[in-house]
Amino acid sequence: MSGMRPTGRLHLGNYWGALKNWVDLQEAYQCYFAVASWHMLTTGYDDTSSLLENEREMVLDWLGAGLDPGKAVIFRQSDVTEHAELALLLGMITPLSWLENNPTWKEQLQELAKSKREKMLASGPTQEAQPREAEAREELRTHGFLGYPVLQAADILMYGAEVVPVGQDQLPHLELSREIARKFNGLYGEGTLTVPQPLLTETPKLPGIDGRKMSKSYGNAIDMLETTESLSKKVMAAYTDPTRLRATDPGHPEPCPENPPGCSVYALHKLYNTDWPRRGDECRAGHIGCVACKKLLLPPLEAGFAKFRERRASYASQPGRVEQVLDEGRKKAKAAAERTLEKVRRAMRLR
Amino acid sequence: MSGMRPTGRLHLGNYWGALKNWVDLQEAYQCYFAVASWHMLTTGYDDTSSLLENEREMVLDWLGAGLDPGKAVIFRQSDVTEHAELALLLGMITPLSWLENNPTWKEQLQELAKSKREKMLASGPTQEAQPREAEAREELRTHGFLGYPVLQAADILMYGAEVVPVGQDQLPHLELSREIARKFNGLYGEGTLTVPQPLLTETPKLPGIDGRKMSKSYGNAIDMLETTESLSKKVMAAYTDPTRLRATDPGHPEPCPENPPGCSVYALHKLYNTDWPRRGDECRAGHIGCVACKKLLLPPLEAGFAKFRERRASYASQPGRVEQVLDEGRKKAKAAAERTLEKVRRAMRLR
Repeated sequence: MSGMRPTGRLHLGNYWGALKNWVDLQEAYQCYFAVASWHMLTTGYDDTSSLLENEREMVLDWLGAGLDPGKAVIFRQSDVTEHAELALLLGMITPLSWLENNPTWKEQLQELAKSKREKMLASGPTQEAQPREAEAREELRTHGFLGYPVLQAADILMYGAEVVPVGQDQLPHLELSREIARKFNGLYGEGTLTVPQPLLTETPKLPGIDGRKMSKSYGNAIDMLETTESLSKKVMAAYTDPTRLRATDPGHPEPCPENPPGCSVYALHKLYNTDWPRRGDECRAGHIGCVACKKLLLPPLEAGFAKFRERRASYASQPGRVEQVLDEGRKKAKAAAERTLEKVRRAMRLR
Repeated sequence: MSGMRPTGRLHLGNYWGALKNWVDLQEAYQCYFAVASWHMLTTGYDDTSSLLENEREMVLDWLGAGLDPGKAVIFRQSDVTEHAELALLLGMITPLSWLENNPTWKEQLQELAKSKREKMLASGPTQEAQPREAEAREELRTHGFLGYPVLQAADILMYGAEVVPVGQDQLPHLELSREIARKFNGLYGEGTLTVPQPLLTETPKLPGIDGRKMSKSYGNAIDMLETTESLSKKVMAAYTDPTRLRATDPGHPEPCPENPPGCSVYALHKLYNTDWPRRGDECRAGHIGCVACKKLLLPPLEAGFAKFRERRASYASQPGRVEQVLDEGRKKAKAAAERTLEKVRRAMRLR
C-alpha cells in the first residue's frame, strides 16, 4: 500500500523516488496505490480549484510509467469513504502527544507558514502583506493537518498491508502507523489489524537541473512528460560542474567537496544511459566537454521519455479511460476496505 | 437535529433535560435523533463492552418516552458513515485553536483524568494505584476527543439543521458548529452548509434523590424505567428539607438559603402532580409531613411511569423491533446525508 498526494504532473524526482519502485512492486505483490486527495486538503484546503485536474494528470503519469490497472488497484482515497471512518476510529485511540511530537508536523508547519507569508508578501499590496507568519501558522494548524498521520495509518491498515515501501526518511511515519495498529490490537483484539513492515527501498539521488533537490516549487524539475524540445532544452541548461572552465579540465561528476551536489547530467546518464561509466571516466579525465556530454545523454533519455509519452497518450486519448481505471480501482478497494472495517467495527463492539 | 451518547438506561434528568423536549419537537419539525456511539468513543474507547447493549436500552427509553419512528428519524451515528467523512472534511478547515480554547475540553479533561485516577486508586493494589493523573490525562488526550466538536458539527450540518435544541450551557458548542459552517461556506461557497440557529429550551431543574445534580455516577438517579417498588423506595428515601424536624415545622420546598438544593420531592410534584401548588403551600405552612407528602406523589408519578413502562415493554417485546426502527432511520438519514455530502464534495472540488 502506498499513495501520493495529487500535486499534478509528476517529475523525475517522483518517478525515481517512488513511482519506479511501484511499477516493480506490482509484479511481486498485490498492490494498492491511492490518489491521496484528502491528504492534499490537510495543507491545501484553501485552494482546491485544480484538485480534479491534478488527480487526472497524476494518474496519467502513473499509467504512462507502467502502473497496470490489471495488476495493481489504483484508486482515489476520497472514493473509498471507509478511509474516513477508519481514520475517525483510529483517532479515538491516538494520543495527541504522538502527533505533536512528530517532527514532521513541527517542521512542515514552520515551512508552510513561511512560504505562505512569502506568497502574501509577493502578491498583496505592501500594507496587507505584512509578515503575518503567526496568522498563517494559525490557519495551517488545523485538526486535519495534525491528524495527517492518523489518516495515513488508516490508508495503510485498511488493506492489511504487510509491507509499505518507504525511504529511510519516512520510517518515523510508518512507525506511527505501527504504533497505532499495536495499540488498537491491544485494546480490541490481537490480530485485528495487520502491523505493517517497512520495505526499505534505495532510491537513486536525482538533483534538479540547478543542482538543488528536484522540486516543483524550485522550478528545477524535469517533468515525466516533456516534449523532445523541452527535454533537450532543460538538459542543455542543466547544472554540471562549476569548477570546469574548459572541456579539458578534469570534472567531478559525483557529489564531492569540489562539486557538492554532483553533476545533474551525470546523474541522468547513470539512470538512462547504459554507457554511463564511460561518461564518468571521460569527464574525470577531461576528455569531454559538458555540452558534448549532454548531447550524448539526449538519445537514451529521449528513448525513455518516448516510451512513457506513448503509453500516457494512449490512456489519455481514450475518452473516460482514466475514470474507468479509477472506478474499477474504487470497487476493488472498497470491497477490501469494507472487509477490514467490518472486522474493526466488531472488534470495537460497534456492531 | 440532536443526539445523545449511549450511556445505557436514561434517568429523569435526561428525560426532563432533553428527551421530553425531543418528543415535543417531533410534532413541529422534521427531526433527526442520533445515537452518538462514536462520541462515546471519544472518552470511552478503552471499554466498549456494553456499547451495543447501552444503545438498545437508550433507544428503548426514547421509544418508551414517545419518540415516534413514524415522525422522527431515529438512527445510529455509526450506521451513517457519512458522518465520519464530513467530520474529516470539516476537520481540515478547523483550527486547533478553536478546539483547544473550547472550555469544555479543558474541564472535561481535568474531570475525567481525576475520575480515572480515582478508579485506579479504588481498584488496583496500592502500589499500582499511585495517583497517575498525568498518565490518565495523556490517555484521554486523543485526536478524537479533541475533535469532539468537529464530529458534533458534522452531525448537525449533515442534515441542514435549521435549529438545534440547546440549553444555555451548550450554546458555546453550537457556536463552534456555526463558526465551522461559516468558514466552510466562505471557502467553498455561501449556502453550501446551513448555519444552524439555537432553539433555546428552558428545562425544569430536577435534582437527584440526594439533592445533588441527578447523575448516574452519583447513584442518586431515578431511572426512566423503575418498577412500582423501586420507584416508591427511591421517593420515600428522597431528600426533602433538612431543617424540618417535625411535620409541623414550616418547610422550604423551593431552593432557598435555608434549603439550597430545594426539596427533591417537591420538584417531582411540580412535574407530575397537577395539585402541586397545594403541596407547596401545605409544606410551607407546616400542615403536612414529608412522609405524607411523598405518599401523595406516588400515584401521579406512578401513572407517568406506567405509561412509559407499557410503551417501552411493547417495543422491547417485539423481536427485532428496535433493530427495525434503527434500520429504517439509517436509510432515511443516509439518504439525507448523501445529498449533503454530494454538495460538500462538489463545493470542495473533490468531485
